[in-house]
Amino acid sequence: MFSCEVLRIGHRPERDKRVTTHVALTARAFGARRIYISNPDSRVIKSIEDVIDKFGGDFEIFPTTNPKEIVNKSDSKVIHLTMYGLPLDDKCEEIKNLSKDILFIVGAEKVPPWVFELADYNISVGNQPHSEIAALAIAMNNLHPTSYNSDFSGRLSVIPSATHRDMRDSSKG
Amino acid sequence: MFSCEVLRIGHRPERDKRVTTHVALTARAFGARRIYISNPDSRVIKSIEDVIDKFGGDFEIFPTTNPKEIVNKSDSKVIHLTMYGLPLDDKCEEIKNLSKDILFIVGAEKVPPWVFELADYNISVGNQPHSEIAALAIAMNNLHPTSYNSDFSGRLSVIPSATHRDMRDSSKG
Repeated sequence: MFSCEVLRIGHRPERDKRVTTHVALTARAFGARRIYISNPDSRVIKSIEDVIDKFGGDFEIFPTTNPKEIVNKSDSKVIHLTMYGLPLDDKCEEIKNLSKDILFIVGAEKVPPWVFELADYNISVGNQPHSEIAALAIAMNNLHPTSYNSDFSGRLSVIPSATHRDMRDSSKG
Repeated sequence: MFSCEVLRIGHRPERDKRVTTHVALTARAFGARRIYISNPDSRVIKSIEDVIDKFGGDFEIFPTTNPKEIVNKSDSKVIHLTMYGLPLDDKCEEIKNLSKDILFIVGAEKVPPWVFELADYNISVGNQPHSEIAALAIAMNNLHPTSYNSDFSGRLSVIPSATHRDMRDSSKG
């Protein structure tokens, strides 16, 4: 299975706090091994670390002040998710057939021109404005279907139910 | 094609402003015809209306102070998206075969018990904490694949590109 990382750029403290947290948790739940966040709030990192602590896995969070360097130094295929890109469904098989590690870039609002230039692929999930969280989920799922069903062997695990909330806490024996 | 609506509950002004906006834009882009939002900020509604105005379609926003009544009065199959529910992939075919309209419920943080009780299905997209935006995108896409490629015939439309941002503005001839 290919390895996948996510780079979150353009994070604006306060304004994007919860959206960036959702980006990170989606990256983790859908099988990414790491997220880079440009200039994150400490509370964003704390929220994500709390989830890892409770629900397991070895997802990593790397704060960065130089997202361009992350891209330049990466050996992965770089896929920038943008409503302006080429349709995912036209490129999905080509990207799968590369069998390469992937670095997804997701921005908030307008991204700087270098993102379009340095990306190997500028890819859209539809050409309507919606959400980088939805785009990341769909792209990760199309490239690696149902990865969101992975087991994280955490202290807490949900017991799926048709009717109510149920969790197992392994620390309580 | 079945019709789809979304009910966003538990919206907390300020804290959820941008996440709720993303929920609504995802609902629109993936083919829902309407969103109900409990106690929305006026700025959330304004952001969504701006997108509809520019990018087209007849997506509707209904503010509500009584989300339970929306559910009680609905003739649709009610699908509550929750990390505690049964796996989407186990129920997807059954739900498709109903050929019924769907009302998705997505909450912020903890939802009240009536949501689990009144829902026809409590469905999870994986059992890890991630994002109601990601869950809605995956659920809508699995029930109606690539609906995000719909054309909205708006004033603005993106011209998909491998390399840069490009838009057509039909009002400029």
